[in-house]
Amino acid sequence: MSALDVIEKNPDLFQVVALSARKNIKLLKKQIEKYQPKAVAVGSKDNAFRLREALMTGSKVKVFYGEGGLKEIASFPSADIVISAISGSAGLIPTLAAIEAGKDIALANKETMVMAGEIVNKRARKKGVKIIPVDSEHSAIFQCLEGGKRENLRRIILTASGGPFLKFTGDQLKKVTLSQTLRHPKWRMGKKITIDSASMMNKGLEVIEAKWLFNADISTIDVLIHPQSIVHSMVEFVDGVYLAQMGVPDMKIPIAYALTYPERIVNDLKSLDFVKTGTLEFFKPDMKKFPCLKIAYAAGHCGGTAPTVLNAADEIAVSAFMHKKIRFVDLPKIIEKVLNVHSVIHNPSLDDILQADLWGRTETEKTIERMIS
Amino acid sequence: MSALDVIEKNPDLFQVVALSARKNIKLLKKQIEKYQPKAVAVGSKDNAFRLREALMTGSKVKVFYGEGGLKEIASFPSADIVISAISGSAGLIPTLAAIEAGKDIALANKETMVMAGEIVNKRARKKGVKIIPVDSEHSAIFQCLEGGKRENLRRIILTASGGPFLKFTGDQLKKVTLSQTLRHPKWRMGKKITIDSASMMNKGLEVIEAKWLFNADISTIDVLIHPQSIVHSMVEFVDGVYLAQMGVPDMKIPIAYALTYPERIVNDLKSLDFVKTGTLEFFKPDMKKFPCLKIAYAAGHCGGTAPTVLNAADEIAVSAFMHKKIRFVDLPKIIEKVLNVHSVIHNPSLDDILQADLWGRTETEKTIERMIS
Repeated sequence: MSALDVIEKNPDLFQVVALSARKNIKLLKKQIEKYQPKAVAVGSKDNAFRLREALMTGSKVKVFYGEGGLKEIASFPSADIVISAISGSAGLIPTLAAIEAGKDIALANKETMVMAGEIVNKRARKKGVKIIPVDSEHSAIFQCLEGGKRENLRRIILTASGGPFLKFTGDQLKKVTLSQTLRHPKWRMGKKITIDSASMMNKGLEVIEAKWLFNADISTIDVLIHPQSIVHSMVEFVDGVYLAQMGVPDMKIPIAYALTYPERIVNDLKSLDFVKTGTLEFFKPDMKKFPCLKIAYAAGHCGGTAPTVLNAADEIAVSAFMHKKIRFVDLPKIIEKVLNVHSVIHNPSLDDILQADLWGRTETEKTIERMIS
Repeated sequence: MSALDVIEKNPDLFQVVALSARKNIKLLKKQIEKYQPKAVAVGSKDNAFRLREALMTGSKVKVFYGEGGLKEIASFPSADIVISAISGSAGLIPTLAAIEAGKDIALANKETMVMAGEIVNKRARKKGVKIIPVDSEHSAIFQCLEGGKRENLRRIILTASGGPFLKFTGDQLKKVTLSQTLRHPKWRMGKKITIDSASMMNKGLEVIEAKWLFNADISTIDVLIHPQSIVHSMVEFVDGVYLAQMGVPDMKIPIAYALTYPERIVNDLKSLDFVKTGTLEFFKPDMKKFPCLKIAYAAGHCGGTAPTVLNAADEIAVSAFMHKKIRFVDLPKIIEKVLNVHSVIHNPSLDDILQADLWGRTETEKTIERMIS
């Protein structure tokens, strides 16, 4: 994992206080031995039991499990900063627990902001907690904004590689396979996010995340296709000046930045060679071919519980695609159908959000069943 | 003039206290009537006399002349910031006078830094004076550096359009005319700087200027050819992150930034359209074809009075080229010859610098005479 790699290379700067894993007990055991955390959390009681058995009898590590366990380690007293990097909606509650405990957040879990951005911001403000993005695009924007006052921001431009299907025709898209979808041209990531990148839903979720992270109106957030993935994102100020953040595509850079901000630390990555890179290109995204982006913009504009349902529907639909129940081009169709029947609640409470998430999942499963039966 | 345009459009922010002109009395008279400065400076006693005659009898504007006159207005009591934008070495003494008087400097005169960077920095530091670059490249770097700590700077990358002769062969370069040289593809500027851009001496002078403005070692300053002139320059931090400043090529942007820093103000320029711009390219500069850049790097590495002589030799050589006394390809030959016979003084005093400047001019004139006779 990139974060542990950054931490390991800078032992004078960082100490691992707590770790989490869902079910890879073997790996977690190794990490416990190596990083000596004070506490860990695993996905279930069973896994906690397996881990306890695997650990040496003298081990003092506290083992927690389930959502309660994540909350426990997210608010662990001796931690200064919590890297919120669980995939999907499961990241929300532990991140809120960390904020409640006054921890700064290195946020890699975009769902936290997509689902409940307003609530997260309100609570972070109240606790005086910094939320520093880890997503390469949002880290880029965060860094660019350090170069000028936020009041002078005119526009945010999220760049997108365009994914593996950038140049596919509509007909070709109808036939893409799961394994094609999982081959991202630039970034090596988890399966869910790789599929979201191919459908451009990932960029849509990032637009909504950016809205909350940078307190920006959706209409001031643009997406630009940039196949080289050298410009990680940019901002435009009111005087027409753009600042762009660039570099090699490696998550270790934004992770280290989030952990050391406002400092930067040396790493062992090669410098970018602009002469070798040669050419940087920029295109408009094709929302007809990639309707997920359009749907996400619409949900972002609508606000309230719409982005929560967007995210829930996408998680279920992508899971169905991973199980080869539906085609790639069915993803936007299903998500749009679910959003169309959702009664949006504006200024939702956390409970409203969790209810909308649950409703979105159930409704999406029903929609898929109807479609494939 | 771009600066007056910026000032005129923001009358609530700026007031013109003093103006200078060398000999265009007609234009200066108009500017006096429009901007109502308290004082002006012109090039000579004669011009001062002509201006006095042209002005209405009731005019209260103080008229100064010569170098003394420039010093007078550069240190004029009610001014907060001085735009140092005289072309060439003539800018040095008035800029130093402004620093002595505690004025912040918006620096468009790169010769000030090339000739006497160390002295200028020392005096500015002593007086607590800010020097904010106006040159588009240096403004870009300045802005990028706001996005991170200067201690974390690894490299400065000055971009260069490559000028009108980027793709010329060595043989073609031998035959270029003055009028070809004066056609810059991207920026409309004065004649001297346009010729310097074609020979890449301008970029060389900018490398030396950057050294002093950003307290950077010459070996950490790179030049990258970027024909689109969209990226105005960039910096690399120790973590391999690049920040680039981009925008339409219009001097009004860096001028306004220097005057309003750390604020930014809205202007009437069109936003950059990355989709229309399409492609950004980057190449290594060809120092064989454009030896001026190499010579400037060598002078920058050498330090002391070498950059002063480089600048003096270039001013005289370019003037000879403008008078069609020498060919375009003779520029680097002449400048190199002069530098080769210069006895560099390290840690020069201001007097040493002024002497070296004078020596450089005389020696260059002699070198040209020898060459063409």
